[in-house]
Amino acid sequence: MTEIERKFLVTSEEFKKESTKQYRIVQAFLNTHPERTVRIRIKGQQAFITVKGIGNATGTSRFEWEKPISIEDAEALLHLCEQGMIEKTRYEIKSGKHTIEVDEFFGQNQGLILAEIELEEENEPFLKPNWLGKEVTGENRYYNSQLSKNPFILW
Amino acid sequence: MTEIERKFLVTSEEFKKESTKQYRIVQAFLNTHPERTVRIRIKGQQAFITVKGIGNATGTSRFEWEKPISIEDAEALLHLCEQGMIEKTRYEIKSGKHTIEVDEFFGQNQGLILAEIELEEENEPFLKPNWLGKEVTGENRYYNSQLSKNPFILW
Repeated sequence: MTEIERKFLVTSEEFKKESTKQYRIVQAFLNTHPERTVRIRIKGQQAFITVKGIGNATGTSRFEWEKPISIEDAEALLHLCEQGMIEKTRYEIKSGKHTIEVDEFFGQNQGLILAEIELEEENEPFLKPNWLGKEVTGENRYYNSQLSKNPFILW
Repeated sequence: MTEIERKFLVTSEEFKKESTKQYRIVQAFLNTHPERTVRIRIKGQQAFITVKGIGNATGTSRFEWEKPISIEDAEALLHLCEQGMIEKTRYEIKSGKHTIEVDEFFGQNQGLILAEIELEEENEPFLKPNWLGKEVTGENRYYNSQLSKNPFILW
């Protein structure tokens, strides 16, 4: 139930050519407290409720619990969420044995593109495509829960 | 997904003789904001995640969504919850065609006993046992989410 993840800015749209899969994500939060976020997400034709805990010192590792729910339930729960719905298109890109997920944001976060890579261990090496920019792992303002309250267009 | 419920104080322990079922409940909250509480509950050998919305003007009717989860998941999620675990024994008592649930609280809420009855409609009549006292429907401080932050022993 612990997720190890590193997050990067994306410097060009080259990743779109390498993408093998893409889908729309709509999500909002029942709780954006950094110690215990509760997220409702619709991802293509699936939906989930996800609880995340606070990150470790570097922000790489974080408790995560997720459960599938119906699209109808997710829609009802989205109505209850805090203001600040997040809309994005996710692209999946194979990079060696890993998959990089790139999120292109819309709405209040238009202009922001973030890449995430999930690892087995904190210091695991991975192939860096040349469109991967500055690492922002652990920077609070890039957490989706924070982007919903303080969106990119206000930065 | 809307729950209609009325809540009462309990004036004696007579209800225990009429109870047909009883079990222990341990619960805590991932979010205690009145507009969207998120509760983790272990109830006997079952566990649930429950989301509730804000009540209507009288506090009788409230959005509720619940999903069973494993006991192991519930235990991990309880660790992430806000401080203020609630422990109580629930007694179920048949009253005409309804079931009254009586919660006897322990720990920080020792001394408090609350009864709840779920109805099909707001003004539906029901049999009132003589141990049912003052109605407290819609009084915020009797919500479990509020009892976890401002427990009965502090009143």
